[in-house]
Amino acid sequence: MNNYVGYKCSICNAEYSPVSVLYTCPACGGNLDVILDYPEIRKKYHTEDITSRSEQSLWRYIPLLPVSDPGGEGTPLRAAGWTPVFRPARLAASLGLQRLWVKDEGRNPTSSYKDRASAILVARAREIKAEIVVTASTGNAGAALAGMAAAVGQRAVIFAPKTAPQAKIAQLLVYGAHVILVDGNYDSAFDLTIEASREFGWYCRNTGYNPFTAEGKKTGAFEIWEQVARSFQDCDKPLCIFVSVGDGNIISGLHKGFKDLQKLDWLETMPRLFGVQSELSPAIANAFDAGNETIIPVNSTTIADSISVDLPRDGVRAVRAAVETNGAYIQVTDAKIISAIADLGINGIFAEPAGSTALAGLKKAISNGIIEPDDPVLVINTGNGLKDVRAAMMAVSNAAIIEPTMTALKKHLEEKGF
Amino acid sequence: MNNYVGYKCSICNAEYSPVSVLYTCPACGGNLDVILDYPEIRKKYHTEDITSRSEQSLWRYIPLLPVSDPGGEGTPLRAAGWTPVFRPARLAASLGLQRLWVKDEGRNPTSSYKDRASAILVARAREIKAEIVVTASTGNAGAALAGMAAAVGQRAVIFAPKTAPQAKIAQLLVYGAHVILVDGNYDSAFDLTIEASREFGWYCRNTGYNPFTAEGKKTGAFEIWEQVARSFQDCDKPLCIFVSVGDGNIISGLHKGFKDLQKLDWLETMPRLFGVQSELSPAIANAFDAGNETIIPVNSTTIADSISVDLPRDGVRAVRAAVETNGAYIQVTDAKIISAIADLGINGIFAEPAGSTALAGLKKAISNGIIEPDDPVLVINTGNGLKDVRAAMMAVSNAAIIEPTMTALKKHLEEKGF
Repeated sequence: MNNYVGYKCSICNAEYSPVSVLYTCPACGGNLDVILDYPEIRKKYHTEDITSRSEQSLWRYIPLLPVSDPGGEGTPLRAAGWTPVFRPARLAASLGLQRLWVKDEGRNPTSSYKDRASAILVARAREIKAEIVVTASTGNAGAALAGMAAAVGQRAVIFAPKTAPQAKIAQLLVYGAHVILVDGNYDSAFDLTIEASREFGWYCRNTGYNPFTAEGKKTGAFEIWEQVARSFQDCDKPLCIFVSVGDGNIISGLHKGFKDLQKLDWLETMPRLFGVQSELSPAIANAFDAGNETIIPVNSTTIADSISVDLPRDGVRAVRAAVETNGAYIQVTDAKIISAIADLGINGIFAEPAGSTALAGLKKAISNGIIEPDDPVLVINTGNGLKDVRAAMMAVSNAAIIEPTMTALKKHLEEKGF
Repeated sequence: MNNYVGYKCSICNAEYSPVSVLYTCPACGGNLDVILDYPEIRKKYHTEDITSRSEQSLWRYIPLLPVSDPGGEGTPLRAAGWTPVFRPARLAASLGLQRLWVKDEGRNPTSSYKDRASAILVARAREIKAEIVVTASTGNAGAALAGMAAAVGQRAVIFAPKTAPQAKIAQLLVYGAHVILVDGNYDSAFDLTIEASREFGWYCRNTGYNPFTAEGKKTGAFEIWEQVARSFQDCDKPLCIFVSVGDGNIISGLHKGFKDLQKLDWLETMPRLFGVQSELSPAIANAFDAGNETIIPVNSTTIADSISVDLPRDGVRAVRAAVETNGAYIQVTDAKIISAIADLGINGIFAEPAGSTALAGLKKAISNGIIEPDDPVLVINTGNGLKDVRAAMMAVSNAAIIEPTMTALKKHLEEKGF
């Protein structure tokens, strides 16, 4: 417990010691920020002590994390994070951008950004000797917890609505989690998870409820800082980061990561954070547009299931992430989300809808003049396209079927002008 | 063309210069081995010149490859290979093994081992200025070619039987390949591909037909050598490698990689190669069992679609890979393949059936006494479980469904003895 000094409520500013609280603010229910011991870290480390570390995973940032080293060497837990950053030149040219990066989170062990949160949560669970970790999830967060827990033999219980896609339930089950389907919606699963964790002493990972999820997600910011932000000296404009937003925890985590670096005097320029939501699940973007922090629940119907959220659990911090960094929120149609899958695909990057949402938002921001050609831009693909093959099929035309003869082939090629 | 001196036929031993031939042996139709300039490589490099390279991909081995650097920096082409090797302690204990590694090829850019072959093929295509690369495929090989080609804007045509799973066709289409479904089986697609490549001058990637596919697949051997084989000095038994076998090209490629290292005097002990086939697709294992190299086609019906092959296109070299390394072929039932998905899953590794096949083979080899507790063993997971969610669901029991109340939850937990 020696890596952080306590918590501060993001709503009422109440402060708490590390041992006094586990989840949201006892006073007002707000999301808690973890406060690191910045003076101590600054005294002990220089940036090079971090960037020269050999571990090619998010664990290279352990000095900046509120958990001790969890062990688990040689397991997928140690292989989370440190995802590749691509520079797709043709995509940049087609968007008219001079500098474009795509960070591919689909390369994580369970194939989504959520592995970052779950890796830190499992580390925390081992530290506080929690026998069982529990979460409510409709997909990636649960798979990430199940996978990271399986890696080190941590027991996990996942509550999901019975309507969750079979593919995602399969992943939960294969990782050996105890999966309980709830005859109700995600919110009822969420509430039951909290009740069960209180009554049985299970450690609850629920996104935005547990303050350590944002601590895991902030490692994406550290990597962007190390892989991209420090490397372009020829540009005086800040990096613009586009990321899809559902419950708001990833963009909050990114913001926290950059704020940590700023407090350590390791970050020269704060990147601008752009949250992208589906028009059919716009609770946080609505608040941003209204110019306030009041998150009004919606009835989400977007096809991008990973960011389909009625009541975002980390909405206030998510609004601030854009406001405080001179970013914005952008709403896109599901049709644009689907077509952005194909835009990434032809550059060799396969994204699920929640991943392509970020690119759809960038395209809209460019056409609106929010992003200019000389803005350096990074797009985060939050999940692997194999997570949702049905959506992928909507992004492309069906393939032609021909007889296996050269005559038929030639006719086909001629028709297609190939 | 300066990295290799020519080809040698694996059947009739005829030799060819680099420029005289593109595919199989013109004399007898046998698979060609690429011959590197071993004395020159030995003169120019020490092992440390390779192992100290910073590139975390298969391109770190470019001095040992028959292609020039293809460029494509900052694209998924440069991110193929250098997959993680795990040491799942609980799995090792349950198998009674002292040393067990799992190399997870599902972490490749298009989520399978096939990216290795396609990365090298695309490099080769750029070198010989091929406008179009074509392949026949029912899944992973096509996705790998489509993905690696998309990464660098290389045009690709994929022929697949119209019965191929929608999920795999989706991946091909999203990467922007020109996909043509053939009203026939894989063999008719294969033959049409070759005819089309002859007539149109397309460069044909067909596995086992193009000698460079094995050159890509050999990079897995280089990584095992660097990540594992050189690191255990406390054991005088050779490393035993278990890998699933369909057309035979991966095991042939692994064998070629280790032979290359041996010819450079960089490998102390040749690993033993164990090929695992489904009992429902056992053409190569049958030849091994019969003690000859005669590959008799079968009528494959295995659920493991990536290794479901009637007529293996690299069968002879695949038999030799086991014979010449004191390995063996092992046949397993589809039921064991499915249950091995769950064995890997509870250790945090999600495999498609062709991936879990290798573990199923290891389990059989242990029970037969072929593998002893002090044998060091490495299992290759050749593909990500997200490639075949239907198979994953067969590996696990359905989740329980409950009302979202604590009463219902307590009753459920009691029933389950949780």
